[in-house]
Amino acid sequence: MHIEAVDFFYLAMPEVTLEADGSQDALLVRVAAGGHVGWGECEAAPLPSIAAFVCPRSHGVCRPVADSVLGATLDGPDDIEAIAARVRYDSMDLLQAAHTFSGVEMALWDLLGRARGEPVWRLLGYRESTAKTPYASVLFGDTPAETLERARRARANNFRAAKFGWGPFGRTDAAADRDQLEAAREGLGPDGVLLVDVGQIFVEDVARAAERLPALEAAGATWLEEPFAGSAFEAYAELAAQSKTPLAGGEAAHNVAMARHLMDFGKIGFVQIDTGRIGGIGPAKEVADLAVARGVTFVNHTFTSHLALSASLQPFAGLAEHEICEYPAEPKPVATAFVANPLARAADGTLKAPDAPGLGVDIDLGAARDYLLDIDIRVGGRSIYSTPAI
Amino acid sequence: MHIEAVDFFYLAMPEVTLEADGSQDALLVRVAAGGHVGWGECEAAPLPSIAAFVCPRSHGVCRPVADSVLGATLDGPDDIEAIAARVRYDSMDLLQAAHTFSGVEMALWDLLGRARGEPVWRLLGYRESTAKTPYASVLFGDTPAETLERARRARANNFRAAKFGWGPFGRTDAAADRDQLEAAREGLGPDGVLLVDVGQIFVEDVARAAERLPALEAAGATWLEEPFAGSAFEAYAELAAQSKTPLAGGEAAHNVAMARHLMDFGKIGFVQIDTGRIGGIGPAKEVADLAVARGVTFVNHTFTSHLALSASLQPFAGLAEHEICEYPAEPKPVATAFVANPLARAADGTLKAPDAPGLGVDIDLGAARDYLLDIDIRVGGRSIYSTPAI
Repeated sequence: MHIEAVDFFYLAMPEVTLEADGSQDALLVRVAAGGHVGWGECEAAPLPSIAAFVCPRSHGVCRPVADSVLGATLDGPDDIEAIAARVRYDSMDLLQAAHTFSGVEMALWDLLGRARGEPVWRLLGYRESTAKTPYASVLFGDTPAETLERARRARANNFRAAKFGWGPFGRTDAAADRDQLEAAREGLGPDGVLLVDVGQIFVEDVARAAERLPALEAAGATWLEEPFAGSAFEAYAELAAQSKTPLAGGEAAHNVAMARHLMDFGKIGFVQIDTGRIGGIGPAKEVADLAVARGVTFVNHTFTSHLALSASLQPFAGLAEHEICEYPAEPKPVATAFVANPLARAADGTLKAPDAPGLGVDIDLGAARDYLLDIDIRVGGRSIYSTPAI
Repeated sequence: MHIEAVDFFYLAMPEVTLEADGSQDALLVRVAAGGHVGWGECEAAPLPSIAAFVCPRSHGVCRPVADSVLGATLDGPDDIEAIAARVRYDSMDLLQAAHTFSGVEMALWDLLGRARGEPVWRLLGYRESTAKTPYASVLFGDTPAETLERARRARANNFRAAKFGWGPFGRTDAAADRDQLEAAREGLGPDGVLLVDVGQIFVEDVARAAERLPALEAAGATWLEEPFAGSAFEAYAELAAQSKTPLAGGEAAHNVAMARHLMDFGKIGFVQIDTGRIGGIGPAKEVADLAVARGVTFVNHTFTSHLALSASLQPFAGLAEHEICEYPAEPKPVATAFVANPLARAADGTLKAPDAPGLGVDIDLGAARDYLLDIDIRVGGRSIYSTPAI
């Protein structure tokens, strides 16, 4: 097969707020080759990501992503890696390229799986898709009482695990954060899995982060996620050395090396990979292999649609011991509108990557028509991108 | 002062080739505040960089760069750092933001310097602008004979130092590369400073890179630049341990941490910073300070205009011992058209950051009118960017 077309669809809520909620818009990618279609999703700013696909070239290694993709051969997983290597080299000076290609790469796996009648996890070499324990990913409430309520709701919705993040955490003092953690633990009950995500709030201030460690330990948190900026490896390692709660990070990784460095230099215990950012499913699988070799636990990062969720489960679908998975529990309507067959949890609340060809998620773009934003980009009087008709 | 307007101008050669020549297009940034104007230049793909400034927000930390810049206070260097910190946090999920902001940040320094009647290097705390030895930055010829000719031309043009890069180097075998290195040395003469840039050609293959070490040593190269991908710290360190020729790298750094890691984990001897990529002049100065503390030599990376050249000299203008500087010796006409007063070299061939307010480079956009590309970006029927009239 040869890649015949790559189309982007930018969907958004009528109003996008300043919440740390990544499900307020979506950039879908549709790839066509050999009579088949595959779908992917960039976890990225839509407009710059589209621009990185269609922009005029700047020089030999600052070329648009399209140059490495359109017309390329797609007959097997090695072809996807060959395309990815071309993007990395020919677009090395185009920073946004990794985010753009992530959605394209997902779509290539989906297409290949559909063409072969195989789930992507099987193409990756796994024999089975193991059950994961999804955690409801929610934001801290503005008050401990709200957080308590959200934790109870998570349990009521059959989630044994929940992750609380962002909101007021880290913005005032350690006592206020302790109250938040106690509320979350109370709401989840003693057997709940409590995960904490502080969204880089301490930037690289180890002392301020360390003030929260006693309360994290007392609340029995399984991990402390992203205390620092994604590349502050030294701060991660320093905090890890004094923390009984393992650190988690990696969602900002836009290549394999960044994730590897967080493990090797940053000493994290959980590596969280967003297939919509790191370059797609192939690089995420590479990180999963590196994690296994190091005794680090792989976890997906997913805050958007079930298309992104399925894609993010594939890289560790066969790793039974890496059993926690992120699950967007309260996505905005735009993130659910285009998914015809969301991933269903089992009666015990667990979740598996689908046992269906490709990513196993069917896209109904017509159902999301109301969220579609028409984009038109003209350079030198010539249209270089215009949203396709659906 | 408050930042009233930020305008982008995308200039390009009529034909942009696949050469590794970053001077084929330019993205100029004009900032207006308090009756003053400042200019900067992104070393980046223009269209995605413009999109990162104007795009709709995706969520609280995936906001367009404009949100952190427009309307902000600009009364001193601390204000520039405060704006930069907001960009890093509020645009943390917008990968292209660092490249976009680099040009904006330069313009903020230029404006502030002009408003105060001070060169930027003085605002950075330096007392004088020291003479640098510029190297002519040219590409390896397709044949050793062409390389010999280019090396001779560099000497004839009063360059004691020259850097040869890209072209066929690393694409065939070590013997061919040895011939190239011998030709470069012959053309430069025994007292010339020979620098070698291989443009990430070995990706992370240490063995293939190591095959070139004997020839590099025999040719007396001062450094070997970018043997590997920008984040392959482990490969850098492994090669550094067996190389008598120091390694150089850093041009891909889009934040301070990446440059620090190349020094601390990658064991480079020369750290090369492009102010048009790392976030501007402030982060570049931070890297210069880190380099001094580590005994690493700071060098600018500049392959575009004299506006970018002046900006890239400021961060190490006062470091007399860090004396090599990159100098785009054969830029395309688009990179020279808009600069009214290029930086002049002294009779002995040396170069200094200008002793004039701001960056000391005057922009004549009208003179570059023929290279200007009209850009129009519409989202949901609404124009969000259109090239301003000049």
